[in-house]
Amino acid sequence: MKFTTFVSAEGRNRLGLVDGDRVIDLNAAQPQVPADLRAALEAGVDLAAAATAALASDAPRLLLASLTLAPLVPEPGKTICLGLNYYDHAKEGGREKPEYPWFFFRGKSSLIGHGAAGQLPRVSEKFDYEAELALVIGAKVPRHASQADALNYVFGYTCFNDMSVRDYQKRTPQWTIGKNFDATGGFGPVLVTADELAPGATGLRIQSRLNGRVMQDASTTDMIWSVAETIALLSDCLTLEPGDVIVMGTPAGVGQARTPPVWMKDGDVIEIEIERIGLLSNPIRREEA
Amino acid sequence: MKFTTFVSAEGRNRLGLVDGDRVIDLNAAQPQVPADLRAALEAGVDLAAAATAALASDAPRLLLASLTLAPLVPEPGKTICLGLNYYDHAKEGGREKPEYPWFFFRGKSSLIGHGAAGQLPRVSEKFDYEAELALVIGAKVPRHASQADALNYVFGYTCFNDMSVRDYQKRTPQWTIGKNFDATGGFGPVLVTADELAPGATGLRIQSRLNGRVMQDASTTDMIWSVAETIALLSDCLTLEPGDVIVMGTPAGVGQARTPPVWMKDGDVIEIEIERIGLLSNPIRREEA
Repeated sequence: MKFTTFVSAEGRNRLGLVDGDRVIDLNAAQPQVPADLRAALEAGVDLAAAATAALASDAPRLLLASLTLAPLVPEPGKTICLGLNYYDHAKEGGREKPEYPWFFFRGKSSLIGHGAAGQLPRVSEKFDYEAELALVIGAKVPRHASQADALNYVFGYTCFNDMSVRDYQKRTPQWTIGKNFDATGGFGPVLVTADELAPGATGLRIQSRLNGRVMQDASTTDMIWSVAETIALLSDCLTLEPGDVIVMGTPAGVGQARTPPVWMKDGDVIEIEIERIGLLSNPIRREEA
Repeated sequence: MKFTTFVSAEGRNRLGLVDGDRVIDLNAAQPQVPADLRAALEAGVDLAAAATAALASDAPRLLLASLTLAPLVPEPGKTICLGLNYYDHAKEGGREKPEYPWFFFRGKSSLIGHGAAGQLPRVSEKFDYEAELALVIGAKVPRHASQADALNYVFGYTCFNDMSVRDYQKRTPQWTIGKNFDATGGFGPVLVTADELAPGATGLRIQSRLNGRVMQDASTTDMIWSVAETIALLSDCLTLEPGDVIVMGTPAGVGQARTPPVWMKDGDVIEIEIERIGLLSNPIRREEA
């Protein structure tokens, strides 16, 4: 099954069930399902059953292409990102395979949906893209989970563009601030439930394209830490909760590693596509003066 | 005025107004005030007027010492922490004054209230304390705010214990994971509104005490980046929203910088006290096997 989060005519975020090129407002069709994905996962409602019932019903269908989309989880409890999780990208940055994931967090004020403008900051010209696989945690992960069990807690997968303000990212050893500018985390458009993909979403082609030009082109199989290993490592430290998001790092080909460097400009369009999951597209707009 | 967040008999977090050694359930006394501090700030209710009315009323008073407290803001939109924000602490770690704050984020799963156990992880023995001043943002900060305006957006100040798992903090250059273990962010017990303190909460003695022994003893005047400067710097990057929290860094005297190092153990009690704000106390308990 596929889910999205769209903005209703009243300006509210609504959990949508994707039916081909159409979307069902799941809460309207199945009122026991909260209208927010995180809330639905926290409540432990049977989303598969609700989705099956909604698909079989004559609930109204909205045209997906006509909707304004929100970040897939508008307010995750945590958004945990990995740096350097593809061998080729670690190497292009002059680094060997790291011995532990480089984790940093994003706050919700950085997140945007498919179609929303990524914001080129007023204070920087070094605005880069990063194609990433993201996953949404479906149920509370026990502390010290094993890799063998870890994938049981993944609800599904989507696309993420971990847009980075490189000079701020590197002002100190802590990358966090360069990863948290407003409107720099593209997140969506559609989540594909884990049962529809290979375990850990391996074997999927992942690309970024800037104004149609392929900039990154890799396979999710090339991740250094798999989804299962990442969840197991995190569970040694903290509790992963329903609606938490893990963003799995980016392959080679980012703008800063090119000669000359490529920075995103006002008017650009950046796309992230992951095979069998979807296409996340965001125009780039300069922050207003 | 002083506020706290306590857990009701029904297990719900409630915003409390402190009246001496007593607490008024503010939502029960003034139903227009949401029962969560972040929600109340987001709604823009006049907390000063509501508090004044509640104090003048015969609303029931609960004994503060008898209450179970929650993190002061149970779920901030963002919890932004500064590293190395006191000259003496930067120096004890072998660093000069940094040229920009070292920002990292905490997730809500790391936060605990006054009196709750700080959790010594199963996977580490290097569990350290950090006495810090925290502030809660009261209203949305415009992007690119000036230092002169920045303090207008601070609702109030409280104590924070930025407990750190030092080996995980240093496994990679990104400190985030070592600052996000479950139950390592002591937050409270009481918020003092900004109007009751000097601008930017300067001039306050800040201490940590481990089993009664003074470990850190400094003044908030010694912060490298003031509260106003920090808010102005952050506003160049992102939107600070009502209920967001900024944790202002720690002075010298942490356990890892001592010879020999001092690590917190099961059964210890760690206290953070900031003059005119309050005393945050947390017992340390080893994570169960």
